[in-house]
Amino acid sequence: MIVVMSVSAVEEDVGQVISAIEARGLSALRMPGGDRVAVGIPSAIPPDMREPLYQILSVLSGVAHVAHVSRPYKLASREFHRADTVVEIKGVRFGGPHIQIMTGPCSVESLDQMQAAAEAARAAGASVLRGGAFKPRTSPYAFQGLQEKGLKILQQVGREHGLLTISEVMQPDLVPLVASHVDILQIGARNMQNFPLLIEVGKSGHPVLLKRGPSATLDEFLLAAEYLLHYNNSKVLLCERGVHPLDRSYARNTLDLNAVPVLKEISHLPVIADPSHGIGISRHVPAMALASVAAGADGIMLEMHPNPRQALSDGAQSLTPGQLQALMPRLRAVAAAIGRSA
Amino acid sequence: MIVVMSVSAVEEDVGQVISAIEARGLSALRMPGGDRVAVGIPSAIPPDMREPLYQILSVLSGVAHVAHVSRPYKLASREFHRADTVVEIKGVRFGGPHIQIMTGPCSVESLDQMQAAAEAARAAGASVLRGGAFKPRTSPYAFQGLQEKGLKILQQVGREHGLLTISEVMQPDLVPLVASHVDILQIGARNMQNFPLLIEVGKSGHPVLLKRGPSATLDEFLLAAEYLLHYNNSKVLLCERGVHPLDRSYARNTLDLNAVPVLKEISHLPVIADPSHGIGISRHVPAMALASVAAGADGIMLEMHPNPRQALSDGAQSLTPGQLQALMPRLRAVAAAIGRSA
Amino acid sequence: MIVVMSVSAVEEDVGQVISAIEARGLSALRMPGGDRVAVGIPSAIPPDMREPLYQILSVLSGVAHVAHVSRPYKLASREFHRADTVVEIKGVRFGGPHIQIMTGPCSVESLDQMQAAAEAARAAGASVLRGGAFKPRTSPYAFQGLQEKGLKILQQVGREHGLLTISEVMQPDLVPLVASHVDILQIGARNMQNFPLLIEVGKSGHPVLLKRGPSATLDEFLLAAEYLLHYNNSKVLLCERGVHPLDRSYARNTLDLNAVPVLKEISHLPVIADPSHGIGISRHVPAMALASVAAGADGIMLEMHPNPRQALSDGAQSLTPGQLQALMPRLRAVAAAIGRSA
Amino acid sequence: MIVVMSVSAVEEDVGQVISAIEARGLSALRMPGGDRVAVGIPSAIPPDMREPLYQILSVLSGVAHVAHVSRPYKLASREFHRADTVVEIKGVRFGGPHIQIMTGPCSVESLDQMQAAAEAARAAGASVLRGGAFKPRTSPYAFQGLQEKGLKILQQVGREHGLLTISEVMQPDLVPLVASHVDILQIGARNMQNFPLLIEVGKSGHPVLLKRGPSATLDEFLLAAEYLLHYNNSKVLLCERGVHPLDRSYARNTLDLNAVPVLKEISHLPVIADPSHGIGISRHVPAMALASVAAGADGIMLEMHPNPRQALSDGAQSLTPGQLQALMPRLRAVAAAIGRSA
Repeated sequence: MIVVMSVSAVEEDVGQVISAIEARGLSALRMPGGDRVAVGIPSAIPPDMREPLYQILSVLSGVAHVAHVSRPYKLASREFHRADTVVEIKGVRFGGPHIQIMTGPCSVESLDQMQAAAEAARAAGASVLRGGAFKPRTSPYAFQGLQEKGLKILQQVGREHGLLTISEVMQPDLVPLVASHVDILQIGARNMQNFPLLIEVGKSGHPVLLKRGPSATLDEFLLAAEYLLHYNNSKVLLCERGVHPLDRSYARNTLDLNAVPVLKEISHLPVIADPSHGIGISRHVPAMALASVAAGADGIMLEMHPNPRQALSDGAQSLTPGQLQALMPRLRAVAAAIGRSA
Repeated sequence: MIVVMSVSAVEEDVGQVISAIEARGLSALRMPGGDRVAVGIPSAIPPDMREPLYQILSVLSGVAHVAHVSRPYKLASREFHRADTVVEIKGVRFGGPHIQIMTGPCSVESLDQMQAAAEAARAAGASVLRGGAFKPRTSPYAFQGLQEKGLKILQQVGREHGLLTISEVMQPDLVPLVASHVDILQIGARNMQNFPLLIEVGKSGHPVLLKRGPSATLDEFLLAAEYLLHYNNSKVLLCERGVHPLDRSYARNTLDLNAVPVLKEISHLPVIADPSHGIGISRHVPAMALASVAAGADGIMLEMHPNPRQALSDGAQSLTPGQLQALMPRLRAVAAAIGRSA
Repeated sequence: MIVVMSVSAVEEDVGQVISAIEARGLSALRMPGGDRVAVGIPSAIPPDMREPLYQILSVLSGVAHVAHVSRPYKLASREFHRADTVVEIKGVRFGGPHIQIMTGPCSVESLDQMQAAAEAARAAGASVLRGGAFKPRTSPYAFQGLQEKGLKILQQVGREHGLLTISEVMQPDLVPLVASHVDILQIGARNMQNFPLLIEVGKSGHPVLLKRGPSATLDEFLLAAEYLLHYNNSKVLLCERGVHPLDRSYARNTLDLNAVPVLKEISHLPVIADPSHGIGISRHVPAMALASVAAGADGIMLEMHPNPRQALSDGAQSLTPGQLQALMPRLRAVAAAIGRSA
Repeated sequence: MIVVMSVSAVEEDVGQVISAIEARGLSALRMPGGDRVAVGIPSAIPPDMREPLYQILSVLSGVAHVAHVSRPYKLASREFHRADTVVEIKGVRFGGPHIQIMTGPCSVESLDQMQAAAEAARAAGASVLRGGAFKPRTSPYAFQGLQEKGLKILQQVGREHGLLTISEVMQPDLVPLVASHVDILQIGARNMQNFPLLIEVGKSGHPVLLKRGPSATLDEFLLAAEYLLHYNNSKVLLCERGVHPLDRSYARNTLDLNAVPVLKEISHLPVIADPSHGIGISRHVPAMALASVAAGADGIMLEMHPNPRQALSDGAQSLTPGQLQALMPRLRAVAAAIGRSA
């Protein structure tokens, strides 16, 4: 942490800053400069002291501003964990050379629908079947999901087709229920900072895909992952799914593919991209899926519905089985172009 | 809803759109135009049909785009509830001519701290004492709150000083506990779209202050309020607390005061402003509190700590009791300037 | 500037950073830390070296990131110019205790229109008459302004009514023409980083109101002001006019009133607020004008048209003379509440 | 255009809306609905009437809101120009199956530097050499470019190496000078809405690459292109170069690749992507260049400098010749994967 003093700060102000730092058992380094003085804290700051210290120093007299020089997360950082983490779930490896495809409908609607979806997923070479049972819906009037019944359908169909399953969990007390039915828990974008949920999923140790919130910075995203890791869940997949767009005239979100190479650099965790939510219009999803692979994503989540026109949710962004099938050869060719497989 | 056809749409495309609408028992109105045709749906669309219909029509052949012409919320809208809602809680009225002041520390830290805060709140003429017991913290390493012990301190101190109390609830299963201790539940910005929580707080019927999410549009904000109203909670206060900023060099958030007159026009619910989170720097909070009053807010939430330099959270944005005391005469003068009291 | 080394940086990396700094005649201070080393540059960095040095250090091996510790502007900063700058133009003082009102239509349309506008401006106690002659229009099909004829009308009417005049200049070669007709040049939001224009207006020494760009950070805004000051124009008014909004369903922009107290603190220049563009809907402009005064603005720019329904541009955000007249007593009362006049 | 009346609008309000529309020679269609009435304008609205009509209708009594149903641009729209526009410049075709590479340094610094850059560009198979001579610099203290001397170097080196050349023009009166030296004019992101410049470049008919502004919506971007087309310049290349990011901790901008497939659908103009500015960190540029190709871009602009550590501007985002060389095989493989060449 660096405390930059104002040009008009007096010696007493600097002394107060140094005292405040030393009072917490840390060392302070005075850096005289041209116009002004800065005070650095060379020692490592204990993580629970980082925020209150920042706050306290910010309001001291003569302080212009306080800058963090290290990142707030540690377990999620590649600095302390150099090697790529490969998350292995029942033999399926996320974060290795093979790019995993996760596909299926937004919502589980019926056994027939899921069986058709699973067949299409298998045919496309996907390894994970998705389907929402507890649905986060912006409007109270929208379809809220089949809940436990939906989980059972998903579980049954996943088993029958040899696919891993993923479904969203929205509240801490339902973590055991959802975890008992699916292979991967999903924490949705709107729950990225639902801390009780993060803690409970962390404690469960169950594999989890964490979606980035729509206005979350990467530090906030990795701090949410840090919650999971801190509570002893090491099977964490990060998922970029689009941030709040400049306007919504042409797309629901802005898929932030910059986040893919950056996250791969600053964290050791696998990174999944979700172009379906990231652009929100089915006819543009293939282009963005290919771009996601090219940018370096370790997995691609694609909404696919046997009959998007009848979907109870997200029909506009869902591929048909035929569209998914048509996309896959190009997707594999792009993967091969960068030395990977899909 | 208006379905705008592409210039190159053929008659068969238009026919399919009309069929899709009529198949759902709605009427369709063909609007021939200069370059293109549009199809309007003049009848009121049942709320649970709004979203799937929009999705289905969006992907039909020849459709350029689909535009909603009505807002997605109804109970929160002033169109169907013309008069201002005044939320009365134990005799304190929110939404009337008197502007209510809600103040206290970010976190309950101790009985002594809360007693000092309550005295300062009373002296300033506040009606509500705030204090967090369950804290949503971006980092797992930050202070997480005193939890139930904190609620008990808040309740005791509120009673002793004749102040209403407010504290955040973060998960559905804790709604009964928090509601048994405080007069107003707070739903934090990061939980604005925590739908299980909204449903549970809705069902409780307990007065609630709902904070706007950091990248929530006003439609999303009012849809979150709609959840509360739909589940039969009529005591809802809206709170603007700042949106994601252009950059964080000089302020934590951008207090969106435009939202105050707009929300007052489109909704009948009281609107509270939170300049402490909205700018995040204590020395600028008074200016933004005055601006919030001038913009028409029905209440002002102000973080105040007996000793901000020792605060376990949000010290940088907390006023001292003296700063709060100094602000109040100006705040009352601004209120008077627009025909209100504070 | 602080160069934060990666945890895995080796001694040679640190040496390279220090050499790169010293090669430019600056001193480097090694700051050993817990996990990593940082290198500070205590000496003042010449302004033209700031950016290339940052760029060069960023790409050196072992560098985690580079952080500026000082702000990039100097002439616009309060640190080197402690006192408020009061810009005096023909006896009208901006930045003193009296809040100046600038009003008039978006575009000069006719002599009659401007005379009616000027009368309303006088009646309201305004000191500046605005009117666009060269109009920046998003669409090539929109009204582009009366150009030189418009300037002449504005000049004549301003003189007749004893009002200062302001009009936008959009290109460097027209600076002399516009400056010969109006008292204050306006640089529009879309031209905030039109550097040739900034240089030309800077050299002219003519009083200028600089609008903040719709996605400009405050550093970028003050750097644009720095151009004006650097080229020897000391008569600079800053203007906050709203930033790009989260969505445009209810307002054209988000008036960022946080910028008012922050700019007043970090810069010595007067700050004007433009609630007309800032919210874009005439019936909400009064609330935001009052909020702007309460937040500490030194002047308020208000679009007003004798007949908004006939306006050739910005009719939806223009007040009528009657609405302006009705606003003024409340605006003066809010000014008085914070110890100022209007 | 659709005028949605408020639920409480009375018959007289509706009549006034219809009169206002018919008074402008347009027809109005009353659409009775469940809760409210809407009024549609089925006829094509002349482009110069679009904005004032919208403004006038917005402020009429009883109007809830007004929605555009058609897009504001016409010449740039694919609706009226179904086929892809291929811009051919001296035999180089933009918008066809071959993806063009544009590369070179941010700024022209010397003849030697440009010759080294041109050799590297040729070796990589690029068709266009870039180099800034008039530089838009955020700070007045930064290097401002070699100006005319720089143009001459660029022209000479381009000719010698058989490369097209591109350089930015920043002010209308310099359009003839820059156009006399380079094959393609560049309009920078900060000048996207510099309307006098757009008009002058439009009139010149000289090939132009138009960069999207950092907070420009796609409608605003295509309206800027519409200026160029309207003033009779048909050789327009669109360029996505990143939008204002959520935060700048890890990247200068957010490359909005969603814009690529969307622009290709709604416009007939070629779309270039600029991953160098789009992410701003040289080591991440290759991943984003590959993603840009996969997303469907017709050309890629890549900053490359013979010695980035000595660059006078943008060193941190410039590739070395070796990095460019290493990228090309993968870039060609991705192009081949989607049926194109590069």
